[in-house]
Amino acid sequence: MTFTTLYVTMKAAHAPRVQPPVGVTSLPVMAAPVALVQGASRGLGLQFCKHILTNRTAAAVIATCRNPGDATELRGLAERHPGRLTVLRLDVNREEEVRGAAERVRESFGRLDLVVNSSAMLHPSGKGETSLRDVSAQGVISTLTTNTVGPLIVAKYFAPLLQKGGGGFGQQPPEKAQQHSGILVNITAKVGSIGDNGLGGWYSYRMSKAALNMATRNLSIELGRGRPKVGLSPQVLHQKYTRRQRRPLVSSKSPSETSRGDVFTHTHMNTDLSPWKPLSLQPFISSINHGRSNLHIIVRCCLCCYSC
Amino acid sequence: MTFTTLYVTMKAAHAPRVQPPVGVTSLPVMAAPVALVQGASRGLGLQFCKHILTNRTAAAVIATCRNPGDATELRGLAERHPGRLTVLRLDVNREEEVRGAAERVRESFGRLDLVVNSSAMLHPSGKGETSLRDVSAQGVISTLTTNTVGPLIVAKYFAPLLQKGGGGFGQQPPEKAQQHSGILVNITAKVGSIGDNGLGGWYSYRMSKAALNMATRNLSIELGRGRPKVGLSPQVLHQKYTRRQRRPLVSSKSPSETSRGDVFTHTHMNTDLSPWKPLSLQPFISSINHGRSNLHIIVRCCLCCYSC
Repeated sequence: MTFTTLYVTMKAAHAPRVQPPVGVTSLPVMAAPVALVQGASRGLGLQFCKHILTNRTAAAVIATCRNPGDATELRGLAERHPGRLTVLRLDVNREEEVRGAAERVRESFGRLDLVVNSSAMLHPSGKGETSLRDVSAQGVISTLTTNTVGPLIVAKYFAPLLQKGGGGFGQQPPEKAQQHSGILVNITAKVGSIGDNGLGGWYSYRMSKAALNMATRNLSIELGRGRPKVGLSPQVLHQKYTRRQRRPLVSSKSPSETSRGDVFTHTHMNTDLSPWKPLSLQPFISSINHGRSNLHIIVRCCLCCYSC
Repeated sequence: MTFTTLYVTMKAAHAPRVQPPVGVTSLPVMAAPVALVQGASRGLGLQFCKHILTNRTAAAVIATCRNPGDATELRGLAERHPGRLTVLRLDVNREEEVRGAAERVRESFGRLDLVVNSSAMLHPSGKGETSLRDVSAQGVISTLTTNTVGPLIVAKYFAPLLQKGGGGFGQQPPEKAQQHSGILVNITAKVGSIGDNGLGGWYSYRMSKAALNMATRNLSIELGRGRPKVGLSPQVLHQKYTRRQRRPLVSSKSPSETSRGDVFTHTHMNTDLSPWKPLSLQPFISSINHGRSNLHIIVRCCLCCYSC
């Protein structure tokens, strides 16, 4: 049995709670938004942390990574935003560790408003397979385990906390029945689209993201079951960003596999993500704010698509 | 290192070779068709073996399974078709075993004309996950390993033999440049379609088949590269069968992820496959005969869809 170590870079950053007025005990305890970013030591996950800490000054962030001791950038971030960042050791390939981490978060925060599943690998070798002869069973299994099974297991253990969320992220519609609780973001990739695959290669990575898309679809169905219907407009669902225009455009070609109402797809948003400027995440974060469901899942491209 | 045991139920069933005329040594040695059916001890794989042995009287069949000693049905089949069936021990989860099996087939037959990847599991427990709480990392990984990685590894080691095939299966067009060598069939499922997923559940199985679809797409691109273009008509690509009508119908809704020219999709052919009558495979086998490419891959539904 492996248990998670709660690694706190600064003083434990519990979400500042807003106490209800004295004597009004029936009101729920309102709290500042809490986000958990899985795979936050570098890349897109780190940028998510930076963005939330900078742009949502009331929000608390839990940043998970495999080796907190090596996460120097996260430590620097914690120094710049004292008391708001909790770093939690988490290897998504260890189910017991994920379960333990969720328990720690439940004890400390009670709920979550946003979970971003960010960690992924191209291939254990660092180089995607350019042909069938490069494929190895072990390479495919390792990639699937990290990129696909990991996010699903994170969803399994953290979804109950998201369902207790107060909708701290995302734009809440005025209708109570339409309001969402938490948001789960699975980072996928354009190369995970079967319909879009015209080049081949990168077997492990493509397969892992296609399977993640399926997992995300399943999650969107199960976690949204029995809840208010999604109120997203098709324009939001199928928007794409061009390199020149930051404002969303309606794509004439809808993404093939992810056209459900509660799944976002940004097939070309990668052009806005390089070179990792925190500001470049704004369109994506904005897109979260367009989402209206109890618990919705956002599928988008990661930087890997930039060269596709 | 694990090596494959060549398990022969009857006298070794090498494909009967047609010798070239004496003195004409430059002509290639023509041979009867050779099919390899992976996962042949039961289910669809067994039916493929039966169908080929019954309907292609010149063809040799190599039937692979994990435990040839327990494959009583295959043994009965070998008795009814003496000298034509070779049973080969093969566990697709062991890459070295797959490599060794391909080497044995190369030594004995020199080439293949058809490979059917058939073995799969719903879940190690025998029951698909009905909700997220049923999901376990180990269950997902096991299912992915057997259903997705296995067929890909089989493709890796047997594709070179298919490329040496003489086009013994499938209808060859008169134009030499359009003729195919071998055919690779990956058995997928309707529930592997993300676009078709409206119910959720069966996380492991759905994910494994979505990833297999991606692998198949990659294979169709790589193995068809630099070869004559596929000459299939859209009617063949998107045909579907109804329960009442055995003749193919053109589906108005094209399958979402598998609409490449060299990938067949039969989203409703499952209605013709139950209750496992050998004859019921005829539409599928016929569809192979419509395929025209050097090496094409067929994606279709398996029986699991019957209850969907």
